[in-house]
Amino acid sequence: MAIKKLWDKGYSLDEEVEEFTVGDDYLLDMKLVKYDCLASIAHAKMLGRIGILKKDEVDRLVKELNRIIKLWEDGKFNISKHEEDVHTAIENMLTDRLGQLGKKIHTGRSRNDQVLTALRLYQKENLKSCMYLAEQYIESAGNFSTTYGKIELPGYTHTRKAMPSSIKMWAEAFIDSMNDNVSLLESAYLLVDQSPLGTAAGYGSPLKLNREYTAEEMGFAKVQENPIYAQMSRGKFEATILHSLSQVMFDINKMATDLILFSMPEFGYFELPDKFTTGSSIMPNKKNPDVLELLRAKYHVVVSYEMQIKSLSSNLPTGYNRDIQLTKWPVMDGFEITQRSLKLASHLLDNLKVNKANCKKGLTGDVYATHLAYELVKKGMPFRDAYKEIAKKYMGKG
Amino acid sequence: MAIKKLWDKGYSLDEEVEEFTVGDDYLLDMKLVKYDCLASIAHAKMLGRIGILKKDEVDRLVKELNRIIKLWEDGKFNISKHEEDVHTAIENMLTDRLGQLGKKIHTGRSRNDQVLTALRLYQKENLKSCMYLAEQYIESAGNFSTTYGKIELPGYTHTRKAMPSSIKMWAEAFIDSMNDNVSLLESAYLLVDQSPLGTAAGYGSPLKLNREYTAEEMGFAKVQENPIYAQMSRGKFEATILHSLSQVMFDINKMATDLILFSMPEFGYFELPDKFTTGSSIMPNKKNPDVLELLRAKYHVVVSYEMQIKSLSSNLPTGYNRDIQLTKWPVMDGFEITQRSLKLASHLLDNLKVNKANCKKGLTGDVYATHLAYELVKKGMPFRDAYKEIAKKYMGKG
Amino acid sequence: MAIKKLWDKGYSLDEEVEEFTVGDDYLLDMKLVKYDCLASIAHAKMLGRIGILKKDEVDRLVKELNRIIKLWEDGKFNISKHEEDVHTAIENMLTDRLGQLGKKIHTGRSRNDQVLTALRLYQKENLKSCMYLAEQYIESAGNFSTTYGKIELPGYTHTRKAMPSSIKMWAEAFIDSMNDNVSLLESAYLLVDQSPLGTAAGYGSPLKLNREYTAEEMGFAKVQENPIYAQMSRGKFEATILHSLSQVMFDINKMATDLILFSMPEFGYFELPDKFTTGSSIMPNKKNPDVLELLRAKYHVVVSYEMQIKSLSSNLPTGYNRDIQLTKWPVMDGFEITQRSLKLASHLLDNLKVNKANCKKGLTGDVYATHLAYELVKKGMPFRDAYKEIAKKYMGKG
Amino acid sequence: MAIKKLWDKGYSLDEEVEEFTVGDDYLLDMKLVKYDCLASIAHAKMLGRIGILKKDEVDRLVKELNRIIKLWEDGKFNISKHEEDVHTAIENMLTDRLGQLGKKIHTGRSRNDQVLTALRLYQKENLKSCMYLAEQYIESAGNFSTTYGKIELPGYTHTRKAMPSSIKMWAEAFIDSMNDNVSLLESAYLLVDQSPLGTAAGYGSPLKLNREYTAEEMGFAKVQENPIYAQMSRGKFEATILHSLSQVMFDINKMATDLILFSMPEFGYFELPDKFTTGSSIMPNKKNPDVLELLRAKYHVVVSYEMQIKSLSSNLPTGYNRDIQLTKWPVMDGFEITQRSLKLASHLLDNLKVNKANCKKGLTGDVYATHLAYELVKKGMPFRDAYKEIAKKYMGKG
Repeated sequence: MAIKKLWDKGYSLDEEVEEFTVGDDYLLDMKLVKYDCLASIAHAKMLGRIGILKKDEVDRLVKELNRIIKLWEDGKFNISKHEEDVHTAIENMLTDRLGQLGKKIHTGRSRNDQVLTALRLYQKENLKSCMYLAEQYIESAGNFSTTYGKIELPGYTHTRKAMPSSIKMWAEAFIDSMNDNVSLLESAYLLVDQSPLGTAAGYGSPLKLNREYTAEEMGFAKVQENPIYAQMSRGKFEATILHSLSQVMFDINKMATDLILFSMPEFGYFELPDKFTTGSSIMPNKKNPDVLELLRAKYHVVVSYEMQIKSLSSNLPTGYNRDIQLTKWPVMDGFEITQRSLKLASHLLDNLKVNKANCKKGLTGDVYATHLAYELVKKGMPFRDAYKEIAKKYMGKG
Repeated sequence: MAIKKLWDKGYSLDEEVEEFTVGDDYLLDMKLVKYDCLASIAHAKMLGRIGILKKDEVDRLVKELNRIIKLWEDGKFNISKHEEDVHTAIENMLTDRLGQLGKKIHTGRSRNDQVLTALRLYQKENLKSCMYLAEQYIESAGNFSTTYGKIELPGYTHTRKAMPSSIKMWAEAFIDSMNDNVSLLESAYLLVDQSPLGTAAGYGSPLKLNREYTAEEMGFAKVQENPIYAQMSRGKFEATILHSLSQVMFDINKMATDLILFSMPEFGYFELPDKFTTGSSIMPNKKNPDVLELLRAKYHVVVSYEMQIKSLSSNLPTGYNRDIQLTKWPVMDGFEITQRSLKLASHLLDNLKVNKANCKKGLTGDVYATHLAYELVKKGMPFRDAYKEIAKKYMGKG
Repeated sequence: MAIKKLWDKGYSLDEEVEEFTVGDDYLLDMKLVKYDCLASIAHAKMLGRIGILKKDEVDRLVKELNRIIKLWEDGKFNISKHEEDVHTAIENMLTDRLGQLGKKIHTGRSRNDQVLTALRLYQKENLKSCMYLAEQYIESAGNFSTTYGKIELPGYTHTRKAMPSSIKMWAEAFIDSMNDNVSLLESAYLLVDQSPLGTAAGYGSPLKLNREYTAEEMGFAKVQENPIYAQMSRGKFEATILHSLSQVMFDINKMATDLILFSMPEFGYFELPDKFTTGSSIMPNKKNPDVLELLRAKYHVVVSYEMQIKSLSSNLPTGYNRDIQLTKWPVMDGFEITQRSLKLASHLLDNLKVNKANCKKGLTGDVYATHLAYELVKKGMPFRDAYKEIAKKYMGKG
Repeated sequence: MAIKKLWDKGYSLDEEVEEFTVGDDYLLDMKLVKYDCLASIAHAKMLGRIGILKKDEVDRLVKELNRIIKLWEDGKFNISKHEEDVHTAIENMLTDRLGQLGKKIHTGRSRNDQVLTALRLYQKENLKSCMYLAEQYIESAGNFSTTYGKIELPGYTHTRKAMPSSIKMWAEAFIDSMNDNVSLLESAYLLVDQSPLGTAAGYGSPLKLNREYTAEEMGFAKVQENPIYAQMSRGKFEATILHSLSQVMFDINKMATDLILFSMPEFGYFELPDKFTTGSSIMPNKKNPDVLELLRAKYHVVVSYEMQIKSLSSNLPTGYNRDIQLTKWPVMDGFEITQRSLKLASHLLDNLKVNKANCKKGLTGDVYATHLAYELVKKGMPFRDAYKEIAKKYMGKG
């Protein structure tokens, strides 16, 4: 059995513990190389300012860190499993190339505030990317509304025809909702936009660091003063990020659900281009909306990530706990899912068609029952009586 | 504001803490009166056997406990908030009526094993009730299949017509699934069917109790020997109970989803009697399947209860932690939801109708595409080629 | 068995369905009476403005609605199970007392937008209450810091002594975090602060309603224009409310975890007054921090509510679905838990003591290892070398 | 920004949809190669038996499929992204090497029952592996108990010293609990041990397949008769698997929590060997139990997987929905986490030490208060009075 093979090779215990604790962190950390370098650049400059590094030392560190960013952008920087994480890998490269100087970069900081800082920079950029993609989705929905908005179709409640609706009303619901989602993304951004650099292991540093300087250098709106809060906010801020992403995904879940239902040939209000549908291995007749089903399903992945973080960071005392390392993957994958889904949802809207004839066919008489009741109201009948009058027409009908 | 009023009345702190810690426990505990008495009866008899109580004392305790059960069955036993929980209320009544003797009943046990025992007895009875109701649901689905089974209708995949199905196939899917659910309920029952009485506060008792005797007396299959495990299993066993309930509710969720969709007039395969549907306050035309929507929704409540228990009991050391008190409500409400839902789902099946004409109308030509391909296979064509041959017919069609 | 009795009495099906669909809604709705009346007052005035009601009619409706608010505040307004919900109960009373006029109040609205409006008003007031209680908690933490802030104690990482910390640093972490929570509550408030009244059943009303007027009358910051979005935001907005509440509860969970741990006699840094602790039924020696354990546990209830809402509102098409009715309880109970917990946490902080002697005893030499390393750094040694130098002292020690 | 680059390269839409729908499935499917081949071998033999394939054809298919299994075991079988999944990759290789014959293997089955079958075989083997590792853990805990069992130490309730406990009692709690977990794994195994092969796309096959034969050939205990149930059980069975895994992880979570707490130098009951602890980048004094913290945290990942599956498979009609594809990763990763954690927990137990002196020191007088009360009980005092008598000694003490 595969698993047994893996474990039965007689690894010494040290190796097993190492294997378990490193996990895939060294891979996930590949996403953080640039951000860790940017934070190190700010830190090095600050160490220069407060007299711990010489100007020349700062310059050499900054130059080397920029070189690493470049390497990474070119896909040439790797983190080996043995190095454990991005911070070690970068410090190793600095020491390899700059000798003693490389060892000095860690003065006045801990891996705890270092990873927190890199993650924040990463999160800020990805929240911005989500906002940008949300705006594109809004644009696509707007275009869709411009093209098809005037078409009327039945509005449903309880999955039953209710009253007349329109494509415009439908598309604008998603536009308004996504605009509110952008506000939630902004709230998350504001929360995250505080610099933890200088909080060290979670109880501050005996050195007098200039935390305002590094914060400004990295583009943070403010300093997160309290070191215990800095550690406490790891996991916590991630929960708010994932909540905001979940709300974006909620809209996509709902739009996908509508489109799966109302593009059924039995309704035919919406039409997906053939190239958006997939076939079956056994049924030659099938054109399946797999892409919509997966968009619908991805919402649940993001929600489960939020729960995971909320659960694993609970019942723990203040101060860094290694448990919190597991929040990296949910946030990173949460961002990727949301960004891909937004992009794809926009493309769907760009290609989606409305079948006017089917919409019209759907507007059967019962959809106008409320309007008829209001005609009676306009003639002076109290609403409840008008309602009962019209309701008689629908007695005994399915 | 309502809430502020509640808190601003200047309660002394003691009262606030008491209020908070008691919570609604004294109300929930009303469900446990009988079970706590049954456990106390077994405990009293055992104390007699090991010589701590005299025969006469045992008899008086047993008589009084049976009287309390009777009172409870007649709705005449109450637990006041001040008494905090069922155990105190019963002990108080025993002491009121039996004097010194009432104080002796707690010998050799703790509230920790006492509540555990009462809960287990309660859970066993409720798991049995769920199994019974699941069998009734299976019977209703069987009757439904007998009445309508031969009717053919389209089977869907990806919410798109796929191949011919039948009411028989549909109903039997739910029968087979519910049978497997019953196995899960039985697994939960087996797990719970071990007596914790005698584990005291979670580290055993200095007295030599006869735990086999009380276990047998209460109808437990075995003794849960280890006191630390007894405490550790609180919350843990509840998670398995709720998982088994969630699987029952999953089937009901799925059946409700099918019925909501396929009783839409646009399909009309299924028909809900009028008296199962509700109206709208504004739209005189509406007949809404609220009951199905609520059945669908209740699944999520049960799942969230399971999660709640799994989350709140984590990251805690062994030994009783008060956190675990909060598992009472999720389990009790989880049982009630599942039992009501099963009952209602059975009634639905007893009243549900199939519209044969609509089913037939739904069986459009494309549903038979796979069958056509297999006709070619029978003539010797490899399946992949037959598939492509038939697929040509559906090119470019929605 | 209790459950079977309930169901086996041969209720006719109608009653069972009614029982199931109404559920406890009529009880929960008791919290909404005032808000529903306030919304009805605004609606009545608006109907007057657009000429559907006469001035005199408006006056009578407003007067009667204010009378109902008064009744409710005096605990004299009830909703019977038969009436199903607050809206029906109020409309019934209006009709009883005002005859035909009572029937007119529902003109131009649906229960869908009516309940949405009442819920929003309720949510706004409760979010404000949470913010107020959060401020009080911040004040209590501030006082605590003023009293004990200068006391030093060990800071822990990985639940192991790490570096010196202080009560001030500890208390201010919770202050800063709660301040950020208030921002999240405000985000939720902003989201909710849009008036859905006039969106009717979710597809607008054929009448020309003055939605800006009612919004302003009720104190909403703006109109939620799109009727489909109004419905779609039910469940969705609740998820954001519960997320914000969960973040408040997260801090309380963490503070409680710290206090449970560090008030153990083995540490003794913090001391709970006796009257905050509870005893054991079997162990005469016990003083248990039940109140802290329950505060810790309540977090998980709120998180599970958020999940429940996020799960049950998913995979559903646009337009009202009855499933969403189940979001009432989680939000209402979520508010109550959070408000009570905040209040209690403040009281705890007001009564909590710090044991200076124990804190000092905890500050063993190893806590200063990092400081020693920095002494070497100040003398010019690269940090990595200083680290290794000091680390030698701790080799082989637990 | 990284993400934008990914999406801005102007992929044609087809490619984006393909990219999104395939996802990482082609990588996950690498775990299924052997199982899909085994199922195909059984299917081919059955097609021979019912006369659709000739004996010679069957032999060639079986030989080729065994060759693929061998390739996979040697790490030489790959699935390209373009091939989408394991089924396509294997069918392609068959067709490449066997021509027309390769196309015939898909006769009478669909990817829907094919993937279900491969997953079941994979799940059965992994559940067995979990049971095996659970037994090893039980053995390690047994050895630990043999070595240290007699040592007494304080038992805690409410994280407060309560009564005397022992290493034996502690270790055996985990043994008993893991034994019950094995029963849950067995329940999951029994559930999964039914063959879906032959249910085709979810509505059966027009061909008369011999399902008993394939079931037996693959080692399934029985045939899962109903095709709709076969599809419905995807996601559902996975939920039960993950629940059983979560219960294993719960125990590990609890054991880790105990060990993190009681290996703190402040207690020192347990001792982790140095090579199991990790250091800090800034604090030279630290030996951190990272491995225990990660074991503790992994529980939450498994629980979130269970939730994800339970949420994403809800509110969906019967018949295959593509959403369900997303259940692959949670199950596969859930297995891997559980297996690794069990293995590591066993190793921990093999290396964990108990510090007898510290345990003894922990057994302070108050731990024996209950015993003292029972001494009085033995002399005839009612328990409640004895309790009060002893309690006096602890008044006013922390």
